[in-house]
Amino acid sequence: MKASKILITGAAGFTGRHACEHFSKAGFQVIPVVRTKKGSDFELTYNVIECDLTNKTGVMMLLNSYEPDYVLHLAGQNSVEQSWKESLITFESNVMTTINLLEAIRNSGKNSKVIIVGSALEMDLAKANFPQHPYSLSKTIQTLCSRSWAHLFNMDIMIVKPSNLIGPGYSNGICSIIGRQVASMIKGHSEKVIEVNDLSAHRDFLDVRDAVTAYHIILEKGESGNIYDIASGETHSIEEVVLGFGKIADIEITIRSKLPFQERFIFKIDKSELKNLGWKPSIPFNMSLKDVLTFYLQLYKGE
Amino acid sequence: MKASKILITGAAGFTGRHACEHFSKAGFQVIPVVRTKKGSDFELTYNVIECDLTNKTGVMMLLNSYEPDYVLHLAGQNSVEQSWKESLITFESNVMTTINLLEAIRNSGKNSKVIIVGSALEMDLAKANFPQHPYSLSKTIQTLCSRSWAHLFNMDIMIVKPSNLIGPGYSNGICSIIGRQVASMIKGHSEKVIEVNDLSAHRDFLDVRDAVTAYHIILEKGESGNIYDIASGETHSIEEVVLGFGKIADIEITIRSKLPFQERFIFKIDKSELKNLGWKPSIPFNMSLKDVLTFYLQLYKGE
Repeated sequence: MKASKILITGAAGFTGRHACEHFSKAGFQVIPVVRTKKGSDFELTYNVIECDLTNKTGVMMLLNSYEPDYVLHLAGQNSVEQSWKESLITFESNVMTTINLLEAIRNSGKNSKVIIVGSALEMDLAKANFPQHPYSLSKTIQTLCSRSWAHLFNMDIMIVKPSNLIGPGYSNGICSIIGRQVASMIKGHSEKVIEVNDLSAHRDFLDVRDAVTAYHIILEKGESGNIYDIASGETHSIEEVVLGFGKIADIEITIRSKLPFQERFIFKIDKSELKNLGWKPSIPFNMSLKDVLTFYLQLYKGE
Repeated sequence: MKASKILITGAAGFTGRHACEHFSKAGFQVIPVVRTKKGSDFELTYNVIECDLTNKTGVMMLLNSYEPDYVLHLAGQNSVEQSWKESLITFESNVMTTINLLEAIRNSGKNSKVIIVGSALEMDLAKANFPQHPYSLSKTIQTLCSRSWAHLFNMDIMIVKPSNLIGPGYSNGICSIIGRQVASMIKGHSEKVIEVNDLSAHRDFLDVRDAVTAYHIILEKGESGNIYDIASGETHSIEEVVLGFGKIADIEITIRSKLPFQERFIFKIDKSELKNLGWKPSIPFNMSLKDVLTFYLQLYKGE
């Protein structure tokens, strides 16, 4: 039997690298797509394809050439802060890449199953008249378009909304930021002090490898047009993150809390649907933290 | 005093031509923008500028060069039928041109006041999960983005939702389609028979010149982020349209009604806000029909 083909956009990103590894191991033929090659080992390992997804002709050629069974669309602009400065690029990166991809799939004749990654920061269109920031608007429209394309053109499109993904690899998430600092402390490069905004802020953290497993299950068994919340179901405070790293590294970290204000992030967890598909998280929080730290410590190799 | 500058996109279109005429007469310096020049008299009269609004660099150069006080964004893909075939182009024409324009204005430093044209066919986001067609989705997102940009970046952006615009000039509206046929009948080029879907369908028809007057008032006095419905407040059936033309032309037209089914177009008319700004329609329905007919009869000049 021929291996199923999965095209992964944003392949060199935090989730993308884990997804390439997961689906390769699972016997898929992986087609990893990046915007620009940077000459990394990763690119050689996975034979990465270069394509700017805002270029509709390029995307069409990509889909026609590879005819994937599955598409995992991870590429995008994921920084709220950046979305204020680069609103147009955020819109292009999140909305236009998605529409270009969906149109290329639709016109390719191959009924590829697609996962689009939404966000917990999207607007509730039934209630909110205005987005909080351009990022929220772009993700809201990305999801609105994806569901509309599924509905209007009878395509197999699922939307996933992962919570805060953590684990080994470069990421701009809070766990990575703190993990990088702790690694630096262990190597004696910085003071054992961490500054955070609000220690009491709680987040649902999920290991990125568990998220990728969920994507796999959803690609194979998910229902078109559905939105799947993907979360661990347990929240941890930023204080727990810092203390967790301190315990693993066996060092005492002084925590300085900045402003009292912090946006309270309430993640509405509805795992029921995913549970029905047979998914549950398997990597405990502390294991994720340990792997984050190991990743950043490895960067000091040879020092 | 220097004349106010107004940049009009889609300038060669049905409304665009009337807008160029109106604002020129009103003493504005008009900057008419078209996608492609076609060598028409109109282009010479108004010294038309060529710019593809899906090209963000081009749009930025356009705004930086002309620094308009007002922008009337009439360009777009307005055919529901076409939106099924060319969904991506519809999205680019309606959404991306708007975002490119708004971002170019935001970055130009000149706080131009902008009118974006919405549609009565937009989704009610508070209720509908899915659009009826790609056109509806594109216009919904165009309005959502326009209001969000007004809110997020404190820009002067007004949205107008005109009803069915009629009057002299090329248009794909039902009055123009019928008017063209009646002109052909008068000239003896076709049978005195008209086929329509549903004679009893009622529409709110408004003369395009009245709509342009409303745009003028809204540009000068409108409130940012507001949505202005622009309508005559009276509806006419398709039968009235045909009979109206017949009476003006003094010919008897046989009407053949096709399928009994017809999408019922209910236009929610809320003219109160515009009334407060001092606008009311001034051109009676029959005058519009007469001018439609005169326009199409002129095309036979020299025959």
